[in-house]
Amino acid sequence: MDDERTLTLAEIENARERIRRQLPPTPLRRSFALRPHDVWLKLECWQPTGSFKVRGALHHLVSLAETERRRGVVAASAGNHALGVAWAVQALGGSVPAVLFVPETVPRAKLEKLRSFPVTVRVTGATYDDAYDASLAYAEAAGARYIHPYDDPLTAAGQGTVGLEILEQLPDVGQVVVPVGGGGLMAATAVAVKAKAPGVRIVAVQPAASPSLSESLARGEALHLFPAAPTLADGVAGGIGDLVFRHRALIDEVVNVPESAIEETIVALLAEDQVVAEGAGALAAAALRCGLIAPDGRPVAVVVSGGNIDARHLARLLAARG
Amino acid sequence: MDDERTLTLAEIENARERIRRQLPPTPLRRSFALRPHDVWLKLECWQPTGSFKVRGALHHLVSLAETERRRGVVAASAGNHALGVAWAVQALGGSVPAVLFVPETVPRAKLEKLRSFPVTVRVTGATYDDAYDASLAYAEAAGARYIHPYDDPLTAAGQGTVGLEILEQLPDVGQVVVPVGGGGLMAATAVAVKAKAPGVRIVAVQPAASPSLSESLARGEALHLFPAAPTLADGVAGGIGDLVFRHRALIDEVVNVPESAIEETIVALLAEDQVVAEGAGALAAAALRCGLIAPDGRPVAVVVSGGNIDARHLARLLAARG
Repeated sequence: MDDERTLTLAEIENARERIRRQLPPTPLRRSFALRPHDVWLKLECWQPTGSFKVRGALHHLVSLAETERRRGVVAASAGNHALGVAWAVQALGGSVPAVLFVPETVPRAKLEKLRSFPVTVRVTGATYDDAYDASLAYAEAAGARYIHPYDDPLTAAGQGTVGLEILEQLPDVGQVVVPVGGGGLMAATAVAVKAKAPGVRIVAVQPAASPSLSESLARGEALHLFPAAPTLADGVAGGIGDLVFRHRALIDEVVNVPESAIEETIVALLAEDQVVAEGAGALAAAALRCGLIAPDGRPVAVVVSGGNIDARHLARLLAARG
Repeated sequence: MDDERTLTLAEIENARERIRRQLPPTPLRRSFALRPHDVWLKLECWQPTGSFKVRGALHHLVSLAETERRRGVVAASAGNHALGVAWAVQALGGSVPAVLFVPETVPRAKLEKLRSFPVTVRVTGATYDDAYDASLAYAEAAGARYIHPYDDPLTAAGQGTVGLEILEQLPDVGQVVVPVGGGGLMAATAVAVKAKAPGVRIVAVQPAASPSLSESLARGEALHLFPAAPTLADGVAGGIGDLVFRHRALIDEVVNVPESAIEETIVALLAEDQVVAEGAGALAAAALRCGLIAPDGRPVAVVVSGGNIDARHLARLLAARG
């Protein structure tokens, strides 16, 4: 983002009107795994591609002018964002040319999934950064629109519709707990919730292996790059964007969750709630389960952001902890 | 059922009006695991208790007169039906006294789940049949309403709302594939679908270990008791009810799925669709995956009836086949 602009409630409400026909609200369900606490799971892992990313991708695409759509869109991602863009292209009838850059490390299952959508997939470079560079170069050469995964007001406004849904589904909610990667979901959810219900606490969660938000707050600047340690929550490892840093005043608390709590929560959500969460998706629930966040007597909503976990990984976790 | 009455579309449409506020439509999602076939998963495993049983239970309860509700309800079940009744009681504000009889064999996790609802749980007898006898005796003595899990028009009309939702969500559906235990879901779904879209094929699926529907059709009578072999799809093992037998003309095809296909499909749904299905819940998808049903060029909807599978069981399947 090249301006200092913040998001508004109106942008997020507009986004909701534009995407709701294709993306009806995901369920908000009381968790069995987190009882006796009164905790509700916002099941973004049950979106059509298994993550909340479809919201921002669809909103970005429907917001483009006809001429922009005709020139096509470009994205780089090793996972959920690429799937979100691919799904959104399909939801719009396949009429938007889309080129998705993924690194060579992408798991085969994810690659096959991507290729089942009406998009062009380019496997380019050894790392995400290589794929990212290639996607920017391609977008510039082709005059196509680059869809940023989080640091973009159109993408983020779509993600923030999660917050509007939580307030409607659980009007007496007292805390909303959100995992933070680049921070688009966090920023926009905070804007939506604080605008409509200022008394609701907003809690941001990252893995202790990649505490880029609390480090950024401590240093007083957004750390776009962050040397994360290995983590099960690989979907949120790395730096944050400017957008979430600019909205930091809306975040009441930031907690960093240890790996063991993430593992334990993935197994508990599966065993007791029949919910498949990926590492990043289990973060918010893990913060409650390991006692880093205490409910204040009011119901708590935790965003289960995604469910795209490798089955062999899940098998290992279940075998070790089941 | 002590009459020869069949279900009507109007009963199922009425049921839908009565339950839809508390039970919005479950997602119908294109399956990745079953590609290249155009197969859609009706995700009843994502109901609040993890199975479709909440539909029939809630409809039964809201259909009772105020005096009947005050006298209370009784059910016997080792699993999903009891959870359905318990959830429905809670959805109605806990105002209906409910006594649920479960056998001593009930898993502890399920028992704890049941006890988290505003109901009385009685652990009685070594088997389901013992719990069933105790529940009938209690209902008679207490003047309470016995809620039959499948062979009852009020329960079944609730389950049939699945069929109405599928037709709305996928208007060009060509086949609807439904797992059969007692047959309430099967009978009412067939009534709803055939009344509104007579050209849609209706396929019933059972495990090869418990083919009570095809055996009943062969013998010309409903086999209420059936000596099932051990099966992963234990939720549908045993005999069928009179209601489904009375609606047998609406069923175009009955297939019986081998255990290996059920196992393989549970793993595929988890790995490729991030969907947790119990054995019975995976049956309909398994029939397609192992080639017992062939799509005819039109989209196919398969009902994933439930997701309450034991985590240790899932761990074993993943380890063996993942």
